[in-house]
Amino acid sequence: MRHRRDELRWNGWGRLDQGFETHGRDAAVWGFVAESLGTARLPSTPAPRLEDTTLPEGRAPESLLAELGRATDPSRVTTAARERAFHAYGRSYYDLLRLRSGALEHAPDVVVYPESRDEVLAILKIAEAARFAVVPFGGGSSVVGGVEASGGPAHAGVITLDTTRMSRVLEVDGVSRTATIEAGIYGPALEEALSKRGFVLGHFPQSFEHSTLGGWVAARGAGQLSNRYGTVDKLLVAATVATPRGLMATSAFPASAAGPNLNQVLCGSEGTMGVITDATVKLHPLPEARKIFAFLFKSFDEGLTAVRALVQEEIGAAMMRLSDAEETRFFGAFRHVIEPSRVNEWAEGALGLVGYDHKCVLMVCVEGDADEVTHKIKRIRAVAKARGGLYVGEGPGKSWWKRRFEMPYLRDPMLDHGVGVDTLETATEWSNVPRLYEAVRLAIRGTLEAEGRHAIVMAHVSHSYLDGASLYFTFIFLRDLAREIEQWKGVKAAASRAIVEHGGTISHHHGVGTDHAPYLDVEKGPLGLDVLAHVRKALDPKGTMNPGKLLPPRG
Amino acid sequence: MRHRRDELRWNGWGRLDQGFETHGRDAAVWGFVAESLGTARLPSTPAPRLEDTTLPEGRAPESLLAELGRATDPSRVTTAARERAFHAYGRSYYDLLRLRSGALEHAPDVVVYPESRDEVLAILKIAEAARFAVVPFGGGSSVVGGVEASGGPAHAGVITLDTTRMSRVLEVDGVSRTATIEAGIYGPALEEALSKRGFVLGHFPQSFEHSTLGGWVAARGAGQLSNRYGTVDKLLVAATVATPRGLMATSAFPASAAGPNLNQVLCGSEGTMGVITDATVKLHPLPEARKIFAFLFKSFDEGLTAVRALVQEEIGAAMMRLSDAEETRFFGAFRHVIEPSRVNEWAEGALGLVGYDHKCVLMVCVEGDADEVTHKIKRIRAVAKARGGLYVGEGPGKSWWKRRFEMPYLRDPMLDHGVGVDTLETATEWSNVPRLYEAVRLAIRGTLEAEGRHAIVMAHVSHSYLDGASLYFTFIFLRDLAREIEQWKGVKAAASRAIVEHGGTISHHHGVGTDHAPYLDVEKGPLGLDVLAHVRKALDPKGTMNPGKLLPPRG
Repeated sequence: MRHRRDELRWNGWGRLDQGFETHGRDAAVWGFVAESLGTARLPSTPAPRLEDTTLPEGRAPESLLAELGRATDPSRVTTAARERAFHAYGRSYYDLLRLRSGALEHAPDVVVYPESRDEVLAILKIAEAARFAVVPFGGGSSVVGGVEASGGPAHAGVITLDTTRMSRVLEVDGVSRTATIEAGIYGPALEEALSKRGFVLGHFPQSFEHSTLGGWVAARGAGQLSNRYGTVDKLLVAATVATPRGLMATSAFPASAAGPNLNQVLCGSEGTMGVITDATVKLHPLPEARKIFAFLFKSFDEGLTAVRALVQEEIGAAMMRLSDAEETRFFGAFRHVIEPSRVNEWAEGALGLVGYDHKCVLMVCVEGDADEVTHKIKRIRAVAKARGGLYVGEGPGKSWWKRRFEMPYLRDPMLDHGVGVDTLETATEWSNVPRLYEAVRLAIRGTLEAEGRHAIVMAHVSHSYLDGASLYFTFIFLRDLAREIEQWKGVKAAASRAIVEHGGTISHHHGVGTDHAPYLDVEKGPLGLDVLAHVRKALDPKGTMNPGKLLPPRG
Repeated sequence: MRHRRDELRWNGWGRLDQGFETHGRDAAVWGFVAESLGTARLPSTPAPRLEDTTLPEGRAPESLLAELGRATDPSRVTTAARERAFHAYGRSYYDLLRLRSGALEHAPDVVVYPESRDEVLAILKIAEAARFAVVPFGGGSSVVGGVEASGGPAHAGVITLDTTRMSRVLEVDGVSRTATIEAGIYGPALEEALSKRGFVLGHFPQSFEHSTLGGWVAARGAGQLSNRYGTVDKLLVAATVATPRGLMATSAFPASAAGPNLNQVLCGSEGTMGVITDATVKLHPLPEARKIFAFLFKSFDEGLTAVRALVQEEIGAAMMRLSDAEETRFFGAFRHVIEPSRVNEWAEGALGLVGYDHKCVLMVCVEGDADEVTHKIKRIRAVAKARGGLYVGEGPGKSWWKRRFEMPYLRDPMLDHGVGVDTLETATEWSNVPRLYEAVRLAIRGTLEAEGRHAIVMAHVSHSYLDGASLYFTFIFLRDLAREIEQWKGVKAAASRAIVEHGGTISHHHGVGTDHAPYLDVEKGPLGLDVLAHVRKALDPKGTMNPGKLLPPRG
């Protein structure tokens, strides 16, 4: 197994042997963060060790463990403390607070690693009969409470079903450019297997290294190059789901008018309707060329206009990532702390003189056939220039590309220094993007500042469509150590309300989980929620699957 | 009303003042058809007049008519024979046989024309209370039995709800490039309203002139330029549906991870879950330039390889339409009968000499910015040439474009001459296209020839995707006048079985209706069908909506 659980952090991001690289400039980094948050010195708030952390008492009777062992293999059924702790929560800021609290309120009573569809079906039957909830778990990178090991009020316990031993590439159809792959495969293993055959899936969420195909489908995710490869709902061709009522498989058609599209029901089902065991996805050939280059805009609005023009003119960029002024400034300064450069300082000064003192950076990635890349770059530069974009070359893009999966590693050391950091995201139609942007920023900043906290609130657009775009917010703040969970809940509630009250979806690509479930009714409506509840009932009549996620739990 | 029912054929296609134009060459045309079908002379089989056609006795009590009149307006509630006959069936070959039989087995007991969401909701409440089924009806162009005025066993009668008085453009958002439009608008009125604002929806099914936005969404249709504008499921942003339980509206987001996508449940729901009252759709600017040009290939397989290369290289054609050898030959000869040309004859002879005697024509349409059109044509010509394509200029495309909505008008005179003509379609992954093509052709031809009938069976690919393509079959045959319905049922069943047994979807864009419902289980599976039944139950608990379409009726 490439992602052995004992090599991964049970209470933080990623691999134990990896972390955020400060190039020996630790003191400077934390000095910069402290200064940015308006304080002289950051506190030391290390995480308790597993040995010092209490877990809820396991409720799985021996008979259940034996039954699960017979259905799979006894070596793949575990109640070990580290396994239970690793699978207790996802990896949201809220999850990390709880994983670092010294006492876990929730943890699975047992973790089981099936290796086939049949084993999954058998586990679901056993769980249903024992009134245990089942929480499907892939990489466990959910940031919305999607894998929290909690059952409903009627459950006797929780089984976490870890899918990562189902990770084979079952079929590659080079003519149709599709592949059928087991759902527990991690991003890097998936792309490695495809690249050997000359293909790429192209789904690169920030969690890429620690998330799985099944999780991507279940949470309806989006990758950094979604402009080219599509969000998961677009790259999904078919899926097989093991439900308490048996297997349900959708058919692999390029398009169909044979009634509603059930792929689009499974995509976003978040484990509440069953366990995705394998999926068929669209492939692209490995790109011959890739270029990432950047422009500066004098304002976020100007940048938005350019991104909109580029996507609506259908030039076909693989990525357009526009940071607002605060994000451009903060990450620019942060990079400067880690890798000081006199050249950069001069350049910054010069840009200020020509009106780019509140500059917003737009990174554009273009991929494909070398001639087409050249053709597209020419068109993109012309459109961006006409909207006030200043071309600044390939430097910023190269630096971002190298570090694009590294940011989650920065959260753990921040947490060790009393600093909170969270992200949230939404999407809306183009005409509403500026209004939603302001409303959410104001809600986050306002809530933190009302507590007398300094906050860094920044945003970017990373997914754009003919009709609208996503907005992704990152906020960094000093934790109120006495009430850090309440502090987070206050900000999260204010931001969520701002999103749904200003025409945004409660999530563009993180999903719903437990954290967004209370806001789902605004966009789905009572009948829409009832439709989803009926679908769930069809596939999981007894409410075994991932209770409390996506929809309210059943009594 | 631009489509006044008294100006339209009640038992055939389109407007009474329009028909298939033979340029005074009627005798030559029917001589050619007779010869093609291996007979010396075609019989005369004119349709009975309405006055000579019996309708089932109306079952709507006066009290119901009065109630419907109060909910809408008495002038918009009708039991007139012509209205009932017009709304009795859709416009499939099977429907036409029945409309021309002299006795209608089904007809709505009453037809009502609501003008608002509230009126629709009121009609549904009245129908539910009276145990009348409701059949939503837009242009009525369904070719799969989607608007047949039949109720379930427990229904006291049938109300056909004609949506065409709900046809206003409610909002155009020029920034987000979306429009919200009432569902009863016909294609030409919709495009006319949008073009005044500089936009185009771009959905051009062959039924364009006689189908409505709501019907497109309900049946999950596809237009001729779907490569550019998308099939309906892709151009749909949001919809409002009036259900027996009230209004359900989806939200207009460019993308969302907030659970399953309910647009994709409504799209393809075929009136079984409610009446679509309005929809928000994506717009494009009116194209600056449009070119249609053609290539010849020596075989269908060679053409398929070229279409696949063109779509997988993502060049961005608006349309690629590849006819097989039989379709190329038949329509070429047919056109020659209507518009004889010595130049064409010479050209045909010359092509035969260079190996194109079984040639397949590929028409490609490119739209957009003039420079981009030029750039794309260059790329398309290079790719096609590398796959054996012979460029033959803009002639064939111009001729097709001019007549592209005219073909349905040819069916009625064929029916008057004892000739049957039907179409059916499917889609599959690229690697399976040749196998499915052969299987369906063989099934159609085999069934007709087993009866000793000569048949013309031809096909084209008109919608292509990264992972696969559609296949559209047209077959022309001499009717067995003594058992014409059984004859059709035999061919339809054989073709449908061939489709589902060889990995095709039972419909790429016609929908399910009554005709394809028996085959839906193969692709949806028992659990998939149960999911749909549960969704229907959530929105229409008493089974009022369009019984027997899409899913089996409820007892």
